[in-house]
This record gives sequence, structure tokens and C-alpha cells, in this order.
Amino acid sequence: MNPRGFASDNNAGIHPALLDAIIQANVGHVIAYGDDPYTAKAKEILSQHFGQDTEAFFVVNGTAANVLGLATITDSYHGIICAETSHIEQDECGAPEKFTSCKLVTIPTPDGKIKPSFLTSCFHDIGFEHHVQPRVISISQATEMGTVYGISEIKELANFAHNHNLLLHMDGARIANAAVSLNCSFREMTTDAGVDVLSFGGTKNGLQYGEAVIFLKPGLGNDFKYIRKQGMQLVSKMRYIAAQYIPYFEKEIWKTNAMHANRMAQMLRDNVAALPGVTITQPVEANGVFAVVPKRVIKPLQDKYFFYMWNEEKSEVRWMTSFDTSEEDIKGFTEMLERLLRNQQ
Amino acid sequence: MNPRGFASDNNAGIHPALLDAIIQANVGHVIAYGDDPYTAKAKEILSQHFGQDTEAFFVVNGTAANVLGLATITDSYHGIICAETSHIEQDECGAPEKFTSCKLVTIPTPDGKIKPSFLTSCFHDIGFEHHVQPRVISISQATEMGTVYGISEIKELANFAHNHNLLLHMDGARIANAAVSLNCSFREMTTDAGVDVLSFGGTKNGLQYGEAVIFLKPGLGNDFKYIRKQGMQLVSKMRYIAAQYIPYFEKEIWKTNAMHANRMAQMLRDNVAALPGVTITQPVEANGVFAVVPKRVIKPLQDKYFFYMWNEEKSEVRWMTSFDTSEEDIKGFTEMLERLLRNQQ
Amino acid sequence: MNPRGFASDNNAGIHPALLDAIIQANVGHVIAYGDDPYTAKAKEILSQHFGQDTEAFFVVNGTAANVLGLATITDSYHGIICAETSHIEQDECGAPEKFTSCKLVTIPTPDGKIKPSFLTSCFHDIGFEHHVQPRVISISQATEMGTVYGISEIKELANFAHNHNLLLHMDGARIANAAVSLNCSFREMTTDAGVDVLSFGGTKNGLQYGEAVIFLKPGLGNDFKYIRKQGMQLVSKMRYIAAQYIPYFEKEIWKTNAMHANRMAQMLRDNVAALPGVTITQPVEANGVFAVVPKRVIKPLQDKYFFYMWNEEKSEVRWMTSFDTSEEDIKGFTEMLERLLRNQQ
Amino acid sequence: MNPRGFASDNNAGIHPALLDAIIQANVGHVIAYGDDPYTAKAKEILSQHFGQDTEAFFVVNGTAANVLGLATITDSYHGIICAETSHIEQDECGAPEKFTSCKLVTIPTPDGKIKPSFLTSCFHDIGFEHHVQPRVISISQATEMGTVYGISEIKELANFAHNHNLLLHMDGARIANAAVSLNCSFREMTTDAGVDVLSFGGTKNGLQYGEAVIFLKPGLGNDFKYIRKQGMQLVSKMRYIAAQYIPYFEKEIWKTNAMHANRMAQMLRDNVAALPGVTITQPVEANGVFAVVPKRVIKPLQDKYFFYMWNEEKSEVRWMTSFDTSEEDIKGFTEMLERLLRNQQ
Repeated sequence: MNPRGFASDNNAGIHPALLDAIIQANVGHVIAYGDDPYTAKAKEILSQHFGQDTEAFFVVNGTAANVLGLATITDSYHGIICAETSHIEQDECGAPEKFTSCKLVTIPTPDGKIKPSFLTSCFHDIGFEHHVQPRVISISQATEMGTVYGISEIKELANFAHNHNLLLHMDGARIANAAVSLNCSFREMTTDAGVDVLSFGGTKNGLQYGEAVIFLKPGLGNDFKYIRKQGMQLVSKMRYIAAQYIPYFEKEIWKTNAMHANRMAQMLRDNVAALPGVTITQPVEANGVFAVVPKRVIKPLQDKYFFYMWNEEKSEVRWMTSFDTSEEDIKGFTEMLERLLRNQQ
Repeated sequence: MNPRGFASDNNAGIHPALLDAIIQANVGHVIAYGDDPYTAKAKEILSQHFGQDTEAFFVVNGTAANVLGLATITDSYHGIICAETSHIEQDECGAPEKFTSCKLVTIPTPDGKIKPSFLTSCFHDIGFEHHVQPRVISISQATEMGTVYGISEIKELANFAHNHNLLLHMDGARIANAAVSLNCSFREMTTDAGVDVLSFGGTKNGLQYGEAVIFLKPGLGNDFKYIRKQGMQLVSKMRYIAAQYIPYFEKEIWKTNAMHANRMAQMLRDNVAALPGVTITQPVEANGVFAVVPKRVIKPLQDKYFFYMWNEEKSEVRWMTSFDTSEEDIKGFTEMLERLLRNQQ
Repeated sequence: MNPRGFASDNNAGIHPALLDAIIQANVGHVIAYGDDPYTAKAKEILSQHFGQDTEAFFVVNGTAANVLGLATITDSYHGIICAETSHIEQDECGAPEKFTSCKLVTIPTPDGKIKPSFLTSCFHDIGFEHHVQPRVISISQATEMGTVYGISEIKELANFAHNHNLLLHMDGARIANAAVSLNCSFREMTTDAGVDVLSFGGTKNGLQYGEAVIFLKPGLGNDFKYIRKQGMQLVSKMRYIAAQYIPYFEKEIWKTNAMHANRMAQMLRDNVAALPGVTITQPVEANGVFAVVPKRVIKPLQDKYFFYMWNEEKSEVRWMTSFDTSEEDIKGFTEMLERLLRNQQ
Repeated sequence: MNPRGFASDNNAGIHPALLDAIIQANVGHVIAYGDDPYTAKAKEILSQHFGQDTEAFFVVNGTAANVLGLATITDSYHGIICAETSHIEQDECGAPEKFTSCKLVTIPTPDGKIKPSFLTSCFHDIGFEHHVQPRVISISQATEMGTVYGISEIKELANFAHNHNLLLHMDGARIANAAVSLNCSFREMTTDAGVDVLSFGGTKNGLQYGEAVIFLKPGLGNDFKYIRKQGMQLVSKMRYIAAQYIPYFEKEIWKTNAMHANRMAQMLRDNVAALPGVTITQPVEANGVFAVVPKRVIKPLQDKYFFYMWNEEKSEVRWMTSFDTSEEDIKGFTEMLERLLRNQQ
């Protein structure tokens, strides 16, 4: 088996420079639970990048970043509008419902992206107590389908949300991949585009673990410290999460890693799109490639380069690239796929 | 300020051998969310230590280990019996109530240890639907007061629990300190003593982060994987938690670290007990020393060696030692305390 | 305004014989919270009708009957499969999510009725902790669309459920209307058809308030008394709920009322179906009539006979009949509708 | 067995004038869920009595009134301060924890009444995320011990609460008994004394069922309609709750009933206090009498006049009087008790 597969960007390990930050932080005692100089510095860096009126808090993983961020801005009778394909709807084993008590109001989309025009059906019975009241639109940037919202699309959604007394939440588990895809700063795509609350992801882009919930409007995160603690996400040795954020930003590792992963996805798409029997099913705008391939090639390919079936019925698969995917991986994978495809059975 | 204080054992960092395990595990891709060889090996080691019929799951922190373990064995209308001083009652910002919906039924104790004779008041109205129904006794080993249950005391509580249709849960945030204090194996104090569910802690004894919930009876943990995921505690790069457990057990780092921390606590107690104006308030059986000292010495002492006030009214403080506390730390601290005490104002 | 409209069967009052039962029960003291002779007798009657192995509990309203019944048979990480049009999905302001923490997994249907063939998409990722695990199929009998499952359709769903390790829940808010529609006993349609848990409704058929949660398999309801109390649904003066159930069954008021309401719905459909510009959109199998009518007639009609818009975009309305709808009501309504339709504007 | 016992004021039935209001309201259709003229009138009456800036909502029972009222003014990480003997702590099977997720912070009291001086221990660690943050003081008026707060005591608690950024909640399950005890209006004891949220009880004073949650400050109840619906407490045929409130206030039935019940309690106390072997343990300020009596008399007395043991160990019993307790009941009870006491065994 190849040392690296295409299953998920979180199958990759820690980027060496971030691991080094962990090692360097392993000196003496610091006050636990985030009252340490690493956390102070990391939060300062985040406010430089997202705006001085923003406030960032570290949690362990993306599930918690999304759930606790949403819990902070909702009451139990609210509805959270999201795409049918969104991670909060599909992949959290009901964590949002458990912790927020909200109903997830799902929207079908062709490519994982919500457009304002899709939302009309959510706005019946406002003020009518028999129905959950919509409060948040949650979008993923990049989406779970490997697509990326343009800045103007985000602004349009933010305007729509604010005009309807809603907030805009962004699940940024792959926010670095989106930023390099759009060639913009984090801030242009979030604070400046009108996003209210952001789950800032890093684990899928080379961090060990540790995501940030960033409140982009003053006051929104006032209660978050209690919600995080009650949400079981306040880690004692927070310095090891925070320490990674310092080189992640200062050395622009987020950018290097995400550019590489995205480039690998483009290369993979370019290589396989030409092969007979392969159909690319989504635009490749970040680090994921979705394709329909003949069923017979899947198992042998997975044995060498592990990846997941996306849609059994359609024989659609998902290939994710990561910061450590090599050109050799792509080449070897493509050659093996080509061989399997030509190998008539 | 001294590089190490006495605030908490989780103000210390990562033990070098455990950090090395993290570094060694940083190779290639492994399947995320625990389906990796490090996790498999760590779980195997835990079942060797706790019994082949036990099952272990990794979570991030002690809050989650306790809350999710308790959630697995309770229904929402149950009562969880615990000491008034217990961590689940005092220090979790209501996380147990939020996630389990149970009422915590608190028992006053002189030293953090529950005895069966304290429990009579909990057993009125069994079967009466107006009252929460007691379901679990949760004890801390070592306790938050630095005391340790003897094996026979645990057995007695387990018998009491099982005779009353309850389960026995152990918060083992400092289980290694207790084991070396009793000079016994983990198993003698848990599985063999009748404990049903254990929060196995390591973070306070040199791990980066990562605790284990261990179900000590077959079948008890069947649903835990869903509860962990819905509880936002399934980390993607689980290998870095699991990898630490391998040397932690194979090199007996748990024992070396805990023996050292306990010895430092004994030394600290021996040194300060003799000083005029210092009263030791709890038996020193693990790595915590509780003492009443004159108010005037506290602030200057904290400035050099940070620690927490335990009881403002009584002028009682808590000093915790850790795996990296040095004899020089103890010596310097004692000398400074003595100087401050003698320094009449 | 006419004294009776077509808005909902719960806009009607109490059937006189049931009110009389309340009056007759108003004598002396009885033990509160259900330990009274009226409740004992009512439960005995229900077990005669549903089977000696069944167990019934009274709650106040249909919201609670559904939510607490479902809570009893689910864990928080389960999925509850229901029709998109179901009351638990549409009309409970998120009460099921709040109290059960489960995700509602919705199925589109043409007529409010789930068929086994619609369920394939719900059964991916069984045993995979990232997804909620389906545990219950919840159907409404009669449905919110005025249609009724045949006994064989219920049996088919029950078999499907039990073969997939699921339970079958029935929201019987209008169960009497369904029973007379099928000309069968309650038992044939529930216990004997394989239903596991039933919300037995009466409020929409002439009771003041008071529904029953009936567990149709031994043991299923063992914990319900605690869940009901914690769910805020244990009323002290339960005798006034229970007392109504005695004549409701002994004098077959359930049947008389439901037959009348259903007959009125048939008459209404027959009368209006022939009118120009009216399209009946659902089979009229219980006491609801769904129709598309020209927008211009709706407001004046509502002013005299209040009813609700069902689908604004389609100009589809819902007309419900009840136990006290009179033939004059139908006649007057039809004439007014006809007049409005002919009145070209 | 005597037709009336001393078990609880909710073992009594419906006062005839209130039953009559139910009967009179049973005419034609009205819009369900509270949009009916009875509810409008009852709410108007309540705002006359409590103040034009107050807002009242009907729910079914006292459990719900307390839990939903508290849920409206808390976040999940808050602490609710209450007496150890309070109904929300003792008798709700964990409903407050389940629905609010808050911790109940209990205060020991000699007589069920909280004094500001008891509260010091609750105010450590404000702003410290490891602890629940106190947000509400909840008092019962009258208390579960049959005592009554004086108006100045309530004002003192309200001031204390507001000075500490808390709200004051009153469980008024027996508010009428307290009002007649103090010979004051409801308003003097609530709105004017600084109470923020009130559970207004009537079921224990002659109503069938139906309590009101009254928000006494503008804006506090803005979201309550959603919380009530999601809390499963919005009844469809609300007219039958509301209709009772009209004569309850307009004919001052609340006052007549409560004065009678209180007078009966005074008579009972006067009669039994003189008997040998009876010790009255609480001031009789409302409609409950607490007494220690010899164990041997309890069972035979209960067989004729049912009542509850309050404290098994102390042989302390609770006798409640109600609106329909007769002087003959008191006389017969006293005579029987006297006979049993004199009957040496």
C-alpha cells in the first residue's frame, strides 16, 4: 500500500513546522486552559487576520467548532439552514441537534452551494410558534463537494441573511483551500463579506488538532467561554493547539499547504479526466475530486490508495488530496487507474 | 518567576518520551478517527491491563471522559451520586447536566471520599416518579482533596452500588497517583474491585492530551462510539493520542511520573508542616497538599510559584506537584515560605 | 361568522357526554397524579381494546404523546424516519429534537404515506458512527393529508421496520377517523398490525384534552412514568382526563364522532368537487379535504367559515370537519363557495 | 374512608364555579392554541392584576410553569439558586435539568425560606468558566414548608438579586394562600416587590388544571411562545383553561378558596397542637401543617384520612388543607388522632 492515499485530508499527519512548534512549546509550566502566552499570541494573530473586533477561541475539532459556534447564536427553537450535503447534516451523528436542540433545515443543491433563491421555502410561518424559526444560514467554504463560494456569493448570502434577521455561519474546515482557490485573504472572504461566525479549520491542512471558533462581530462571542467549557471542549494544555497557529500564520504554512493540495487535485483531475470511463462530477475548486468510475476498478485501486465511495448507486467516488500528496502519488495513482480501466474484463 | 509552580499538574507539559511517541507517529497517512494501528495497539495494551472483557475508547479530556462515560450508563431521569467536592459537581460548568440531563446528587464528605454510610439519604422514593432515580455512584481516585480510596473501600462501594441496582463510576483523572500510592496495579483498583466505568486520565501525568473511557464490564460500552461522536469527542488524528499510550504503559512512564509527583508532595508536606503558622488540612496520599497558611504570605508566594487559593474564608491553599517538579522547586518554595512566615509584619 | 368553521377539528369543543363525565368525576378527593379509580378504569379499558400486554399512560396533548413516546424508544444518536409532511416534522417547533436529541430523517411522499420502497436511502452507513442510526419509523394514521394507511400497508411497514431492527411508531392524533374509515377495530390497525408505540389521540375527536401513549409490546413502556414526569406531562388532577375515556369507549363516542366527521368530509368533497375551479388534491379518506381553489374566493370564505391556507403558492387550502360539523354547515359553505366562484371579477 | 383527606390540595377537585365556566365555554368553535376570546379576556384580567407591562401565558401544570419560565431567562451554563426543600429540586424528576440544562444550586434553610445572608457561598468564581454562573434565585410563595415570605423579605431578595445581576423567580403554586396570609394583593407581593418571573398556580386552589407563567418585566417573555410550544405545553383547547381564570378573578374565588384552606389549617393546628405527643414543626402560615407524631398513630390515621409522611426518620408528617376541607373533616380527624394517641399500646 502506498504510504499516502486519497481518503481524506485528515488522514495526513502534522506538517513538520507545526510539529516543531509543539516541541518548542514543551518547556516548563504555563497556566492551563488557555491563560498562557502561546494562546495569547495565537489569538492576537487571528485578530490581525480577521479584524480587531473579532474574537477567536480554540476548540479541539471541527465538530465542536461548528456545533458550539452555532449553539452560541441560536436558541433551542431556531432552525439552522444548511445544504443537504453539509457536514453538520450528514456527518456529525446528530451532534448539532443534541447540543443546540435546533432543527437543521436542509436545502438541496447541485454542488453543495446555497443560493438565496433556494431559500424561499424556509421563510413560511415566521412568528408562528408551531414552526422552528430560521436563525442561521450555515455554509461550508470550501464545500463538501469540493466547490468554493465566490466572495460576491458570500456577500449576497450575508445580505440575504441580515435582511431576514438571520446570521451567516461558515464551516471553514477547508477554509485555506478556499482562500487559495480565490486568491484572497481570509478576511476578504469572511469578516469583510459579512460572515458572522466562522469555524476556522486547520486539522485538514496540516495541524495536529485544534480549530478556532471566530466571532466576527463584536459581542457575539461573549458567552462562548462558558459554552465551550460546558461543551467539553476546553483543553487544559491549550498551548499545544495555540503554538501551532503561530507558524501556521507567520510562516504562511496555511497557504503553502493549501496551494499544494489544491494543485495536486487539479493535477489529479487533469490526469484522470482524459481517461476512458471516468466522468468528473463536480468542478475541482479546492482539494477534492469527485468522479464516476466503473465499479470494477474501485476495489483494487482502494487496496493501494485508500479512498471512499461517495455514492454507491452512481459508482461515484471522492478523492481528496492533502498537503503531503506528492506528484508521484498522483502519477502512480493515475497509471494504476488507467491500467485497470484498459484491463477489460 | 520559577519555571514550574504548584498550581496544577496540568500546567506541566508533555513528558519527553511521550512527545517522542507523537513525533514517531508522524509518518504517512493512517485512517482517521481511530481506525489506525496506533489506536489498535493502545487499545490492546489497555485491555491487557484492565482485562480482556474491558473496552477502551479515547477522548480528548477529562471533562468528556466523565460526562460521556456517565451518559452511556444513565437515562435522563437518573441521579448521579457524587461527593460535594467532586470535579463533575464543581468544575465542569454544568457539562454533566447539559449532556446527561441527570441531577447530580451531592454528598458532603470530610476528605472527598464517599462511604456507604453517607448514602442512606439518597435512597428515599425509589420507584416514585417525582424523584430522580439514583443510578450511579461516581468517585474520584485520587480525590480532588488529595486522598486515595483503599482497595477495600472501593470494593465496599461497588458492593453497595450493585446491591442497590447502581453502577460504580470512577473519575481517574489522577489514577496513576492513586495506583502508586496504593502500590497496586490499575486492575486491582478498578476491574477487580468492581468498578463498572472508568475515566482513565493521563493528561495530569505527562500526556499532551487524551484520556480513555474504559468500560470494565462486557457490553456496557456498546453504544459509546455513537455517544462519543455525538459528544464532539471523536478526533480525526487519533493516532497522536493513542501513540502516547504505548510508551506510557510499555515504559511504565505512568508509574515513574506518578511516583515522582507523589514523592514531591510528601517532601513538600514534610518541609512545610514543621513551619510555624502552617496547618496541613488533608492527608497527603497523592500529589496534592492542602494547607492553611497566613493570608499575608499567599500573594508574594504565588508571584514566584503560582498556585490556587482553595478556600478563601479559611485561607486554605492547594499545592499540586507534577511529574516535572524538582527537589529544587520544593526547596526554593519552602525557603521562601519560611522567610515570608518569619517576616513579621 | 358561522359558529363552526373548517379550520381544525380541535377548534371544536368537548362532546357533551365527555363533558358530563368530567362533571360526574368532580366529587370528593382522589389521589393526584393518576393513582385514582378513574385512571385505573380507563387504563383497563384501553388494555381491553389494545391487548392485555399493552400499557397506556395519559398525557395532555398530542405533541407530548408523540415526543415522549418517541423518547422512550430512542437514544440521542438515533434517527426518526418520518414523512416530510408529518406533524412531528412540521408543527412542533422542534419539540422532538429538543427532548429526544434525535435527528428527524424526512421522506418525501405524494400523500403523506410512507412506503417501504421510499426508505432505501435511510439505510446507508448503519454502524458508522458519523451518521445518526435509524431507530424508528413514525407514521401518522390518519395522515396529515387526510389519507389512511390500509392494514396491510401498516403490516408491511411493521415487517420492514422489525427486519431492519427498527420500531414502528404511530401518531394517532386522528386514529378514530382512520378506524372508521377502514371499518376496523383500533387493535387490528395497531397491536395486531405490528405497531410498537401509539399516540392515541382524542382531543381532535371531542375530548377536552388528554391523549394516551400506548406501548403495544410488553416492557417497552417500563420507564415511561419517569419520562412523562421529567417531560412535564404528569398532571395532578388526572381523573378529568381519564374520566372522559370511560364513555368515549363504553358509549362508542369515538366511533359516532369520527363517523360523523368523516361523513361530513365526504359530503363536503362531493359538494365542492363538482364546482368549476375547484380541484380536490388528495383522496378524502378521513375528515380532511384538500383542494385548490381560486385565490380570490379564499378571504371572503374564511371570513364566514374560518380555515387555513395549506400551500400559498398552489392556492391549496385545507378544510377539516369535526364531530359537530352540521349538514347545514356544509350546505351553507358550499353555497357560499359556489356563489363566490360564479361571481366573476 | 373520609371523602376528603389531608394528602394534598391537588387531591381536591374543581371548584363548582370554575367547572361552570368550563361548561359555559363549551359552545361552538373557537380558534385553537389560545387565539380565542376566553384566553384574550383571561390575559387582560391578569394584566390588570399584575400590571400593564406584564405578560401572561397559560400552561398545563406547575412543573411546566416553573421549568419553562426558568428556561426563558437562563442559558444552559447558568445556575438556578433554590432552597433544598424547593419543589423544583425535590419533586420534578429532573425536569429543570432536562429542559434548561442548568445546575440547581441548593441552599439549606430552616423553614423553606431563602435569606440573602444564605447566598454568600453561591458567589465564588463569577466569570470563571469552570463553574456554572448563578442567574436566578427561585423562591416558593408559599413555601413547601407552609411558610410565607413577607413582602419586605421578597423585596430584599429582589434587591439582592438585581444587585448581583440575577433575576428573581417565584414558584407561586400556592400564591393565593400566601396572598391571603399576608392580606395583600398579588401585585404587591410580586410585580411591586421586584419579582421578575412568576409561576401563577391555581390547580391547588380549585382549578381543574392550568397555570400561568407571568413575566413581570417588559420584554422578558418575548420568546416564551416558542419555548412553550417546544416545551410541549401549548394546548389546543386553551379556552377551557382560560375560561376558569375569568370567575377565578372576577368572583374572587381565589380569595375565598385560599382563605378557607388557610383557616382550616389554622384550626387543624390549634386542635392538634394541644394533644400530647404532637409537635408542630413549622409555623402555619398557609394551608400546610407539619407535625411530629408517634409512629404508631400514622397508619390508622392515613387509612381514614390519607396524608403523606414527610420525614420518615423524624416521624414528621404533612397535612394539607384545601378549598373543600370542612370543619367536620378537621373535627373528625382531630378526634381520631386524639383517640389513637390516648390508646396506649
